[in-house]
Amino acid sequence: MPEPSRHYVGVDFGATKIYAGVFNASMKCIGTARFSTKAQRGPDAVIRRIGRCVQDAIDECDLDLKTVAGVGIGAPGAVDPQSGTVIFAPNLPDWRDIPLKEKLEKDLGVPIQVENDCNVNMLGVYEVELQSKPKHVFGIFLGTGIGGGIIINGQPYAGFNRAAGEVGHMVILVDGPECGCGNKGCFEALASRTAIFKQIKSAVKEGKKTILTDRLGKDLADLRSGDLRKAIRKGDKVVEKIIEDAARYTGVAVGNILNLFNPEVVVLGGGLIEALDDEMMPLIIKTARDHALPGTAKGIDIRACTLGDDAGITGGAVLARRCAKP
Amino acid sequence: MPEPSRHYVGVDFGATKIYAGVFNASMKCIGTARFSTKAQRGPDAVIRRIGRCVQDAIDECDLDLKTVAGVGIGAPGAVDPQSGTVIFAPNLPDWRDIPLKEKLEKDLGVPIQVENDCNVNMLGVYEVELQSKPKHVFGIFLGTGIGGGIIINGQPYAGFNRAAGEVGHMVILVDGPECGCGNKGCFEALASRTAIFKQIKSAVKEGKKTILTDRLGKDLADLRSGDLRKAIRKGDKVVEKIIEDAARYTGVAVGNILNLFNPEVVVLGGGLIEALDDEMMPLIIKTARDHALPGTAKGIDIRACTLGDDAGITGGAVLARRCAKP
Repeated sequence: MPEPSRHYVGVDFGATKIYAGVFNASMKCIGTARFSTKAQRGPDAVIRRIGRCVQDAIDECDLDLKTVAGVGIGAPGAVDPQSGTVIFAPNLPDWRDIPLKEKLEKDLGVPIQVENDCNVNMLGVYEVELQSKPKHVFGIFLGTGIGGGIIINGQPYAGFNRAAGEVGHMVILVDGPECGCGNKGCFEALASRTAIFKQIKSAVKEGKKTILTDRLGKDLADLRSGDLRKAIRKGDKVVEKIIEDAARYTGVAVGNILNLFNPEVVVLGGGLIEALDDEMMPLIIKTARDHALPGTAKGIDIRACTLGDDAGITGGAVLARRCAKP
Repeated sequence: MPEPSRHYVGVDFGATKIYAGVFNASMKCIGTARFSTKAQRGPDAVIRRIGRCVQDAIDECDLDLKTVAGVGIGAPGAVDPQSGTVIFAPNLPDWRDIPLKEKLEKDLGVPIQVENDCNVNMLGVYEVELQSKPKHVFGIFLGTGIGGGIIINGQPYAGFNRAAGEVGHMVILVDGPECGCGNKGCFEALASRTAIFKQIKSAVKEGKKTILTDRLGKDLADLRSGDLRKAIRKGDKVVEKIIEDAARYTGVAVGNILNLFNPEVVVLGGGLIEALDDEMMPLIIKTARDHALPGTAKGIDIRACTLGDDAGITGGAVLARRCAKP
């Protein structure tokens, strides 16, 4: 009897959702499942939910765990990929030194790999979207926060303390707005979804008119990136200006990356870019090119990630394939 | 008869001076020579001066060209190291596509290597000062402008268009002071010697009192980095404040490098750091560590380059040794 074909599961594990995808050996996604994280229930409960999400995705494809060669997980925080421990996750209460790999392997009985979510996103974009062609790539992911991932000479680059790529905490406006990290003027404090929502809420408080309040009320509860796109398309000038500023700051950040790293490709992804690609990318690209030293950006590709929300599960599957026994 | 021992010559070729050093095979400097550049005489005259400077340094050591296995030159601008052509040098009139290697090899009859000056500085610091031990190093050189050099996995990292490391044009203050590059708020526009001198001259125009004018007059002609150190040591508050600001901006820039690259070592060099090491380094290090994300700067060494003014000639000799035939 022939050996059953090998599959890999990628998991995008975030503070609000768990998203799992089953991939075949050529990294085609054949089924997914999605859970809310329910982080308030604590690490053990969340780990059980990750396990169930993986099993649901596999079941969705009419497969069982025996055909799964490995699971790769992107986790939102500092991770020790050797031990598969989540050292610290700023947006998950009680996640300190949680042996995610060990617990989940006991639960599922398949090899688990854990890495930082931005590094996993980058791996997915690099191997699947970019087909591993460029040598040096910088990925910037804009969502609740802003993170990054780096490929140098075709390999993920992690730095001395495995902390490289924290592009969200690059200061681009000394003494600018306060950032969650305690410093001021970080890129994340100017152009993340959190920063944008804050700016919109202040604008509303200052009495500026936006159509967002028509549907969501004065407190703008449940505001999402997609609402911003709809508002701009309906001609909302307040939202348009705030998104324009965020795009300009992002362009400055990309310009800095061009001057510092001079990568072959800069990829922008994350929920904000996915929702506001058309509104933000042209200004990001123009600003970045204007800030690169003359001649240095020639031939460099600055693009929105086409994998969108699937970058995380794709990267997880790539990670699982990289680490699987032959 | 035994083969004469091999020597290497490193040349630090700048807009104002040419400095050549002869090194033995273990990279010990055994003699130097120094010329003014006289850039206004044009490329051919300058290339002849580089040749004479190399010959004077060799003669100083009672050697002749036959014992020289190679010459390595750091040039101030964009260089194609394959052909040894200076593509463009912003501070040298008429230096566009000048085949420095070819012309100087004809002149001297020994193999010549040419590279960008910051990359050459970095190479010298890496191999001689750091003994090639750390894996990832970022060098920042503060002088008339601000440049950088990068070592990743023990090798110089140049990027896609050989333009990586342009840390001087990292924007850290959006809409800040104008930079020579045409943008605003670049690190170089805030903390280079040029930026500092500009700030001091404006302070004098605004009527602020500094002891610098006592010796140099109101126009501060011939102001040098060393004058700033002397003024601060004599209690000059105006100069002290300007240098403190420059150190703080430099610290923010180093913090950005820690968050982005997370190298093992950050080395600061160049004329400004050499002259104002004691005045600037403590605040640079404190600010950088305050800006690194918690835990990420652990064990990372932020230091002033001890090679000082000899980083360029040392790096040139290292470059020559790397490229010499065995």
